[in-house]
Amino acid sequence: MYKLVLVRHGESTWNLENRFTGWTDVDLTPTGIAQAVAAGKLLKAEGYDFDLCYCSVLKRATRTLWHVLDEMDRTWLPVAHSWRLNERHYGALQGLNKAETAKKYGDAQVLAWRRSYDVPPPPLEPSDPRSERSDVRYARLAPQQVPLTECLKDTVARVLPFWDESMAPAIRAGKQVLVSAHGNSMRALVKYLDQVSDTDIVGLNIPNGIPLVYELDDQLKPIRHYYLGDAEAAARAAEAVARQGRG
Amino acid sequence: MYKLVLVRHGESTWNLENRFTGWTDVDLTPTGIAQAVAAGKLLKAEGYDFDLCYCSVLKRATRTLWHVLDEMDRTWLPVAHSWRLNERHYGALQGLNKAETAKKYGDAQVLAWRRSYDVPPPPLEPSDPRSERSDVRYARLAPQQVPLTECLKDTVARVLPFWDESMAPAIRAGKQVLVSAHGNSMRALVKYLDQVSDTDIVGLNIPNGIPLVYELDDQLKPIRHYYLGDAEAAARAAEAVARQGRG
Repeated sequence: MYKLVLVRHGESTWNLENRFTGWTDVDLTPTGIAQAVAAGKLLKAEGYDFDLCYCSVLKRATRTLWHVLDEMDRTWLPVAHSWRLNERHYGALQGLNKAETAKKYGDAQVLAWRRSYDVPPPPLEPSDPRSERSDVRYARLAPQQVPLTECLKDTVARVLPFWDESMAPAIRAGKQVLVSAHGNSMRALVKYLDQVSDTDIVGLNIPNGIPLVYELDDQLKPIRHYYLGDAEAAARAAEAVARQGRG
Repeated sequence: MYKLVLVRHGESTWNLENRFTGWTDVDLTPTGIAQAVAAGKLLKAEGYDFDLCYCSVLKRATRTLWHVLDEMDRTWLPVAHSWRLNERHYGALQGLNKAETAKKYGDAQVLAWRRSYDVPPPPLEPSDPRSERSDVRYARLAPQQVPLTECLKDTVARVLPFWDESMAPAIRAGKQVLVSAHGNSMRALVKYLDQVSDTDIVGLNIPNGIPLVYELDDQLKPIRHYYLGDAEAAARAAEAVARQGRG
């Protein structure tokens, strides 16, 4: 039996400001740091240990991982960063807050972008200063690999090759794996592992900073999954995420 | 022409307490953090950028690197940790302060351990609680690879295979490399690169937190090297290290 542990980064500055974040590289708030520290303490207290960590290339996931590793006294563990674990790209909504977005596009449209599996928000112009196409961390990708917007379906499509080519082989090789990622890159993994429908996955809310444990069989099929720590607290945190509906 | 940048970690708690540290995994002091932050700001201001970082498995080097990467907005860079970049193992002196050591072994003997190239301090007993042989981060090494003491010659002998097998090929492949390490693992690299004699290398003092730049030719032979920033400040910092003479 294998175990895989996923952690969604702690609260970010733009979570707090209720702005669509996507690939924008904002940092954690003090609350987010406290969530990450708590996740590390919990993993340590529950006797978890890891051989290998995966992380997006975004600071809020890296910072979360660093705090977790610090608490576990595992600052020396190898960390593989991949853009494929980044948050869903939120296109032209990146940087807008909910009120601005509703004013600009209307409530019904915003709800469609947030709740549909395959309708992306309007794309950024490649020349938009918010576009990541000139960001050095993506310089080795083909331009068309750097999204200008994504629906969740797009996110799933770019997360899964990383699962197949890197994460799954490591787990099969017996590595104990910790993943620090984002609401939608985690949804992508959860959708694949638990074979969640396109409709149901958009209603699945993952709380910040609470380790999500998957027990996997020899074929890496899930046996069960659960949040570490207080189950009610995890449920309340997921509810809070659902109410905010942030990207 | 290649460039290689080496940074010795910032001041650690045991630097401050003037205790022999070696492989003991102590953290940075507030001063050490400030030194690491300053190193990152300096590298950024001077236009340095990196593709790949190397680091020991010790927390003071990792923490230094994290602060440097934070300041450079490069928290997503790959980091390869290796025990081969650890500080020189200080054997039975680990944890003792200078006064205790002088009292226990005599000034002349302590000077010999500090200033000789090939005389190791007395070894730790493998059963000593200070021994790293039960530390999980070294679990995949053969027991005899985990030292119970080292002279500088021993440190050089275990650092150089890592240079040959990992660092040099990466540099030759065009990767811009940053190394976060320790006084004696950096001495090992400097000794090899500049072909410093066994006698002279023990007198070479490397200041904490000041980036040391090597310009290397196609054969990875040094063209020149220099400390970034204020040269007089670097010299004063090296002098301070020399006066303390800590491992």
